[in-house]
Amino acid sequence: MESTLLYFIDLFGTAVFAISGVLLAGRLKMDPFGVIVLASVTAIGGGTIRDMALGATPVFWVKDTLYISIILITCLLTIIVVRRPKRLAWWVLPVCDAIGLAVFVGIGVDKALQHQSSPMIAVIMGVITGCGGGIIRDVLAREIPMILRSEIYATACIVGGVIQTIALETDMNKDSALLAGILSTLIIRLGAIKWHLSLPTFALHR
Amino acid sequence: MESTLLYFIDLFGTAVFAISGVLLAGRLKMDPFGVIVLASVTAIGGGTIRDMALGATPVFWVKDTLYISIILITCLLTIIVVRRPKRLAWWVLPVCDAIGLAVFVGIGVDKALQHQSSPMIAVIMGVITGCGGGIIRDVLAREIPMILRSEIYATACIVGGVIQTIALETDMNKDSALLAGILSTLIIRLGAIKWHLSLPTFALHR
Amino acid sequence: MESTLLYFIDLFGTAVFAISGVLLAGRLKMDPFGVIVLASVTAIGGGTIRDMALGATPVFWVKDTLYISIILITCLLTIIVVRRPKRLAWWVLPVCDAIGLAVFVGIGVDKALQHQSSPMIAVIMGVITGCGGGIIRDVLAREIPMILRSEIYATACIVGGVIQTIALETDMNKDSALLAGILSTLIIRLGAIKWHLSLPTFALHR
Repeated sequence: MESTLLYFIDLFGTAVFAISGVLLAGRLKMDPFGVIVLASVTAIGGGTIRDMALGATPVFWVKDTLYISIILITCLLTIIVVRRPKRLAWWVLPVCDAIGLAVFVGIGVDKALQHQSSPMIAVIMGVITGCGGGIIRDVLAREIPMILRSEIYATACIVGGVIQTIALETDMNKDSALLAGILSTLIIRLGAIKWHLSLPTFALHR
Repeated sequence: MESTLLYFIDLFGTAVFAISGVLLAGRLKMDPFGVIVLASVTAIGGGTIRDMALGATPVFWVKDTLYISIILITCLLTIIVVRRPKRLAWWVLPVCDAIGLAVFVGIGVDKALQHQSSPMIAVIMGVITGCGGGIIRDVLAREIPMILRSEIYATACIVGGVIQTIALETDMNKDSALLAGILSTLIIRLGAIKWHLSLPTFALHR
Repeated sequence: MESTLLYFIDLFGTAVFAISGVLLAGRLKMDPFGVIVLASVTAIGGGTIRDMALGATPVFWVKDTLYISIILITCLLTIIVVRRPKRLAWWVLPVCDAIGLAVFVGIGVDKALQHQSSPMIAVIMGVITGCGGGIIRDVLAREIPMILRSEIYATACIVGGVIQTIALETDMNKDSALLAGILSTLIIRLGAIKWHLSLPTFALHR
């Protein structure tokens, strides 16, 4: 995969994740600053934890300010668009989110391996990159993070990350492995959205 | 501005932010350790995230233990004073908080620029330094962070940070720019307290 | 103390802390991924914050993947065992938790001192290592962290950490000091469990 394309999709994922933060902020009646904070933590929270844990500092959005610019523009546009009655089809946001998620995981795995992490740690860093932001968003909004509860969301990330690292171990070239991982995450996630798949929960009665 | 004076005001801000943590802990009936934790995260949480994101580690309070000492002494004194009936005027705490906030933002911007951040990132680091601690405090206390909702709080930080970075870009000397930024944040915040100013919120109905 | 033994007890503590995360996840009816996340943050959250604040990156579980493996195995075993009716005596988990806590604190103090922290910071890092994971676990589960409220939990960590650093200052050798600290934390915590000791809370009425 050409790295320019990957970078473009990464920015696309940043924008989509920011939108999900803006929408939650709107439901909680936050002021413009609250909107920006919730959009930002959703979009860059996962990658920030990953970079801090790897010691890859300054973190990515300090090095490349385009991420923050994208978030600010997204906030502005979302507020304007959402106030107008014209609606998006229900599946547009989840599908965009799935694309963003898949790319975030692939990039997280890739970055961890660049920092000499073991394959297992690379998968974990992929999951953190993909899911960390949404978890912080929900904590700030005082909700038990959705991701921890009932959907095949993180599971898609884990499978994608595992496939990417296995592909690398079997001497596939880096770009093909990345593509295989991203597509796996994306397909599983889209399937889960379409057929409302979820894992059985572990319920414990006191 | 003489750097000794700045350091003194920074410690003053640390104490004031710690007090706001102690008071919240008191309302939640926490034990002494909970009081110290809530005071500490409020006072040094923002700067800690800033330093971690910049890779300026060990973080500032590990390098200079006076911050922690100030927090511990503040906890002790606040508990003693608050238990006595003698009351402070209502405006004392908000005004002290505004002074602390303004200095924290200025220091955050300054530190980010020292670490070769771009102006936009410097403003963000200023806001994180000023607002991060209060957000963590509210998360631990299981409240939706006040800062995200309805007051000109973060906005004051953003304006102050922008003025400070613009002043530096226009070749103002570092101390004057810092002072201009701090005073801007302070004046806006004091105005917001006096006239109960707030930004319109972004409300989204499902 | 032989360092192999210490490492073994550290892994034991990791497993015990993971169990407490799994049990909370079960009460919240989380899916398998939620179980793993809650187990992981409980077991390695405190040490992760410590390493990030010290700048000891990549953090410990990135360098040594055995911690993550232990957590995954613990999740699996706990889910299987808990679903069976056979019950543990009430004191088994708290006592194991106390052992884990005591070792975590000792290791945290030790690691901070290795990174040239002052004694006060070392004690704080010990407390963060011991208590940080439980606090993050409770935040994710949307509870006000227990540790901040009503039990001699953090206090045991503080006393243990102080004894360890004082022992080192008085030229006791490193292993004896570590052992003295760990035993102090453990004894105080076991006493608090047995006699339901708690500190007076700081209650503030509006």
